[in-house]
Amino acid sequence: MKKKIAVIGSTGSIGTQTLDVVMQHPEHFEIVGLSAGSNIELFVEQVNRFRPQKASIANKSLADQIRPQLPQGVELFYGEEGLVEVAAGTDAETVLTAIVGSAGLPATLAAISEGKNIALANKETLVTAGHLVTDLAKKKGVALLPVDSEHSAIFQCLNGENLEDVQQITLTASGGSFRDLTRDQLQHVTVEDALKHPNWSMGAKITIDSATMVNKGLEVIEANWLFGLGFEQIGVLLHPESIVHSFVEYRDGSVIAQLGSPDMRVPIQYALTYPQRWKSTTKRLSLAEVGKLHFREMDFERFPCLRLAFECGKIGGTAPTVYNAANEVAVARFLNQEISFLKIEQIIETALASHHVLDNPDLETIKEADRWARSLASTI
Amino acid sequence: MKKKIAVIGSTGSIGTQTLDVVMQHPEHFEIVGLSAGSNIELFVEQVNRFRPQKASIANKSLADQIRPQLPQGVELFYGEEGLVEVAAGTDAETVLTAIVGSAGLPATLAAISEGKNIALANKETLVTAGHLVTDLAKKKGVALLPVDSEHSAIFQCLNGENLEDVQQITLTASGGSFRDLTRDQLQHVTVEDALKHPNWSMGAKITIDSATMVNKGLEVIEANWLFGLGFEQIGVLLHPESIVHSFVEYRDGSVIAQLGSPDMRVPIQYALTYPQRWKSTTKRLSLAEVGKLHFREMDFERFPCLRLAFECGKIGGTAPTVYNAANEVAVARFLNQEISFLKIEQIIETALASHHVLDNPDLETIKEADRWARSLASTI
Repeated sequence: MKKKIAVIGSTGSIGTQTLDVVMQHPEHFEIVGLSAGSNIELFVEQVNRFRPQKASIANKSLADQIRPQLPQGVELFYGEEGLVEVAAGTDAETVLTAIVGSAGLPATLAAISEGKNIALANKETLVTAGHLVTDLAKKKGVALLPVDSEHSAIFQCLNGENLEDVQQITLTASGGSFRDLTRDQLQHVTVEDALKHPNWSMGAKITIDSATMVNKGLEVIEANWLFGLGFEQIGVLLHPESIVHSFVEYRDGSVIAQLGSPDMRVPIQYALTYPQRWKSTTKRLSLAEVGKLHFREMDFERFPCLRLAFECGKIGGTAPTVYNAANEVAVARFLNQEISFLKIEQIIETALASHHVLDNPDLETIKEADRWARSLASTI
Repeated sequence: MKKKIAVIGSTGSIGTQTLDVVMQHPEHFEIVGLSAGSNIELFVEQVNRFRPQKASIANKSLADQIRPQLPQGVELFYGEEGLVEVAAGTDAETVLTAIVGSAGLPATLAAISEGKNIALANKETLVTAGHLVTDLAKKKGVALLPVDSEHSAIFQCLNGENLEDVQQITLTASGGSFRDLTRDQLQHVTVEDALKHPNWSMGAKITIDSATMVNKGLEVIEANWLFGLGFEQIGVLLHPESIVHSFVEYRDGSVIAQLGSPDMRVPIQYALTYPQRWKSTTKRLSLAEVGKLHFREMDFERFPCLRLAFECGKIGGTAPTVYNAANEVAVARFLNQEISFLKIEQIIETALASHHVLDNPDLETIKEADRWARSLASTI
């Protein structure tokens, strides 16, 4: 029997790579749901190729525009409700959530409520509502399967082990586009410079987040929820080659690491096939060819956004939501050339400093904190 | 309840480190058997400290010599029968076989027959009689737990995984004392030079075996038996730092590696506590402190003993026994300054070329091949 998959955010970098993986195993996967934002040309192509039960696009106007181009039998939806329909309203076994930003949260919760496993590429889901998502997943007995290469690495390194034997996990960080620049040099970098990531080909937002180290910060908070480990058990290490994707140190001093060529299709496929491993056409890692691997301590002065992530992660409540929302707006403004690169961290820090943290927030409180932070961040 | 352990070869490098591990967990381990060769001073100390049920020493004359110095209640044995008594005649749950050379085989088989798990540091056991040992272990339902750092690494990297998903395993090799010398330069190296291993502090025989790469060759044959993998699935990679102890590549392209500071007490402890991991006082690995890891292709021209190991491993039967026995004699002769370093490989190659391989040998046939090879190797 084929494994049925729905993909939330199918036209982005992770979404298209997910469909790549699906196409490599046409006899074993079936796409039953697809949703996208506004890239209608690619979306129409995807829907025609995979013929899902349900499809959804950003809004009514786009839906009206593409409806005539879709094959018969595909139900078309739009907006936040459409997202929920694709995430929770099909017979998918696993929902891969690759939508960028906090918009993925309601759809993810709806999918979990329906008992679907979540292949999680939308890190904001755990960052802003980790307590709601993990509680519901536990209650419904569904698996949260990480898609991020770092979390997939940790997840793999924990295979067959006991969580209580873990001393520490370490997320590796390439350092992003500006890893060799000083803070002085960062003052005048451009959007174009920032978008040149040395190892991974990714979307614009996450590429900027790599350069600010916000991406690693979000990953630290995500790891805290995914693996139930305290922040004192989570480390970050600079590793320019992005070959060691992350590792776990056990209390006996043994370290288990997951390595590979930088190719997101490997962790995507693992999230979809876990606990099995299927063949893949990824470039095989040759350590002899790589020759050298480098590691150095993370510098929290150089990357204050990472320090802020640890701080707001420990505080909890609505603080990580504010961190994430302020960053989303700041990055959009940077990409729009409204603000400088270093202004991103100032906006996050100011938003966190101005925020009155609420503990154990419900979905409405999270949304309110999110709106508040976005509003503030757009005017600083 | 304490975990009862017998140690075969307690005064050697692995033996003493095993007792170190036991002393770090006095509330959880109990030593019920100890055997040694001729280092009677240390052995008497060990027996007095750990007060095993049974102890054994190389021969009657040494036994008579130490008997007055042993505590009451310890039964003293000697010779090959004594070894079997310590390995199989106590209520040990696990027997750690750290004796060097093929002398450990009968005792190991006796321990398996009695249903004892084997913490295997005596690689010749699997090299010379892999089919007998693994068949008996399977029949008796006992675990063969690797102690060698490379095999322990592979064993750990296979935790929670399916063997059929393995694409390849790779054993790392530091390259030994002479890794940066050309074959020309090897012509005049001395015993003293050879004993300076860059990373590990080990016994003399295994240090020479590291320099000739025979040690890695024996490990390749051992891995073939331990993990049931074909020789085409086993690779060797030069890794001077000995930090990545070995790794497994899965068919999805994902690589799981085990890393650590070079400290044999970690794999020893893991073999004794598996599937649990207990705390250890080993130096924690800091990749930031290490800074760089290097890898390069293995050169089979430079290290012909490794090529010979793959060849005789594939041939099977009595060939690996001859490889091992010829090497043992050659190394002893080199350490005795009778022959040059490069003569070791010539002796092994000549012995293999002169040997008529017998398939699926029984214990007597193995012993006969062993004797034949030793006799030849001592006269070439």
